[in-house]
Amino acid sequence: MDFNLSCPIPISEYPVITMAHGSGGILSHQLIDKMFMTAFNNDILKEGHDGAMFEMPAGRLAYTTDSFVVSPVFFPGGSIGDLAVNGTINDLVCCGAMPLYLSAAFILEEGLPMEDLWKIVFSMKEAANRAGVRIITGDTKVVDRGKGDKVFINTSGIGIIQEGIHISPYHCEPGDVIIVSGRMGDHGVAIMSARSGLEFETTIESDTAALNELAEHVFNCTRNIHMFRDPTRGGLATTLNEISKSANVGIVIEEDKIPVSEEVRGACEILGLDPLYVANEGKIIIILPASEGNRVLEVMHRHPLGRDASIIGNLTDDHPGIVRMTTTIGSSRIIDMLTGEQLPRIC
Amino acid sequence: MDFNLSCPIPISEYPVITMAHGSGGILSHQLIDKMFMTAFNNDILKEGHDGAMFEMPAGRLAYTTDSFVVSPVFFPGGSIGDLAVNGTINDLVCCGAMPLYLSAAFILEEGLPMEDLWKIVFSMKEAANRAGVRIITGDTKVVDRGKGDKVFINTSGIGIIQEGIHISPYHCEPGDVIIVSGRMGDHGVAIMSARSGLEFETTIESDTAALNELAEHVFNCTRNIHMFRDPTRGGLATTLNEISKSANVGIVIEEDKIPVSEEVRGACEILGLDPLYVANEGKIIIILPASEGNRVLEVMHRHPLGRDASIIGNLTDDHPGIVRMTTTIGSSRIIDMLTGEQLPRIC
Repeated sequence: MDFNLSCPIPISEYPVITMAHGSGGILSHQLIDKMFMTAFNNDILKEGHDGAMFEMPAGRLAYTTDSFVVSPVFFPGGSIGDLAVNGTINDLVCCGAMPLYLSAAFILEEGLPMEDLWKIVFSMKEAANRAGVRIITGDTKVVDRGKGDKVFINTSGIGIIQEGIHISPYHCEPGDVIIVSGRMGDHGVAIMSARSGLEFETTIESDTAALNELAEHVFNCTRNIHMFRDPTRGGLATTLNEISKSANVGIVIEEDKIPVSEEVRGACEILGLDPLYVANEGKIIIILPASEGNRVLEVMHRHPLGRDASIIGNLTDDHPGIVRMTTTIGSSRIIDMLTGEQLPRIC
Repeated sequence: MDFNLSCPIPISEYPVITMAHGSGGILSHQLIDKMFMTAFNNDILKEGHDGAMFEMPAGRLAYTTDSFVVSPVFFPGGSIGDLAVNGTINDLVCCGAMPLYLSAAFILEEGLPMEDLWKIVFSMKEAANRAGVRIITGDTKVVDRGKGDKVFINTSGIGIIQEGIHISPYHCEPGDVIIVSGRMGDHGVAIMSARSGLEFETTIESDTAALNELAEHVFNCTRNIHMFRDPTRGGLATTLNEISKSANVGIVIEEDKIPVSEEVRGACEILGLDPLYVANEGKIIIILPASEGNRVLEVMHRHPLGRDASIIGNLTDDHPGIVRMTTTIGSSRIIDMLTGEQLPRIC
């Protein structure tokens, strides 16, 4: 994390969050004015109203919400702050939308170090700037020590759905190909290794990233996209199961086409995880007509976030609702939905 | 709370929320499909995408977010569910907007009784129906026992700002009058008495209510409104201080014009609270030209939520940024902003 601006609230005087920071009184105002306004600074937010107000052209909007409860709040490759911004941006991207505005709502635990909060807020500012979106409205609550866990962040987001783009499981058709934009499992393994204190030869970093620019390149290549999904909680396997069930099609994937780094593969073996069920936070699954597959793949390979993109399989008339995988040794097995709690509090 | 529909998830089989309900796997899907989809049922939500998608006409939008962490989650007059729906509706109303769509994001603590969650979700459905808004996108996370407190809810909301309405502290002018829509302090006192186990002769109920219909009546009477604010956290005193500071005007109010019920006045004495600093969840402050005051007051008196509306004071050139109150015995004192933590976790 690029962290080079010092906390705008004097830490010696206000070292930690107290209940009074959530009371609506003077300390609440200090937190809002000096920290959130400073970091997220923009004209709409500055109006300082009960809500943000802005002009919108007529059109189709996308609207989404996500709460982030990841533990630990700092991990290799990012923090709960990056995740909260990138995650909601990516949900808008999955609707075929250009993300415009985010809200940010914080639930802080009494005793949270002020400096930790600033690091998180700063990472949100950086993530929003990188992606070209603005945080225009927010909220802060404080809960007593032991009634929260450092910080939970909710972000919601609004975007404009691009002309000619109609993403829906109902557009998926047998014959469509499935692209994943990169290596699977980095985020979940980064969190699990941070949590377990395990150290690997190479530090595995979360892939947290905003995918709106990559999506923009894909949409400039073709609008003939049937499905866009980010394989977060539950990983690739769960997301493909959701798609196959809601589209009522079968899915066939090939194990040796699925990009997984050697490090993640090794770490998964040690941690007892299956990389297909591990969360990603900067990857996308695209389902589109086979005729468009290679063109889109080429475009993706030219973008840093799509460098390892791969066509991993296709949709089929056979076994609707079921995901099958051809393994590296040539056998075929059913990839089920996640049943238990493989990785709690991963995002 | 009107509660007459039984929980759509079999409680004998799934008595409490487990970590697996937040994993993105089968139990997460069951919770979403059987509980949230059933309660909030509407066409946009049913698309079941990463986000909601809908058409909007060109115009000025209002957008807001609020997290709710109230304790206890059930209290006389409502629950965290009503509060989460009504609170965000009211923030949109304060922007001069007609509320349309809400998001709902849940952070559940492991061990939360399934039936309690259902009661809360049901109260959200009822509150949304009453106000004519739709919950169109959502999220669920589960945190380990002892890392949350039963349930936290974030709602964000989108509304269309009505033609000809421009609410802003910068429009406030000396001479404007201040209306409050009803009795102050009910919500805060209801929570504090529930929390302290105190019982009064009459149960004091929270005033939680959506104010969009009342606002509609006011806007139909005049669009010449300078300020709309709901005196929630920090109460009337804190909200008036915020307005006087951002508008850079003085405020004078008269103690004997401020509606406070006898019950709340008595309870405040016992609890050591000042009703002016106690949160309201179904009240609005309106600042408008003196010439419009009585007309608007009449309209408000005809609506059940404005029955006790009262002109409590006016803006002045004197002492900009300061709120003064003429007390019942005729003296004048400064009403400061809340400094400490009068009432934590009130909403």
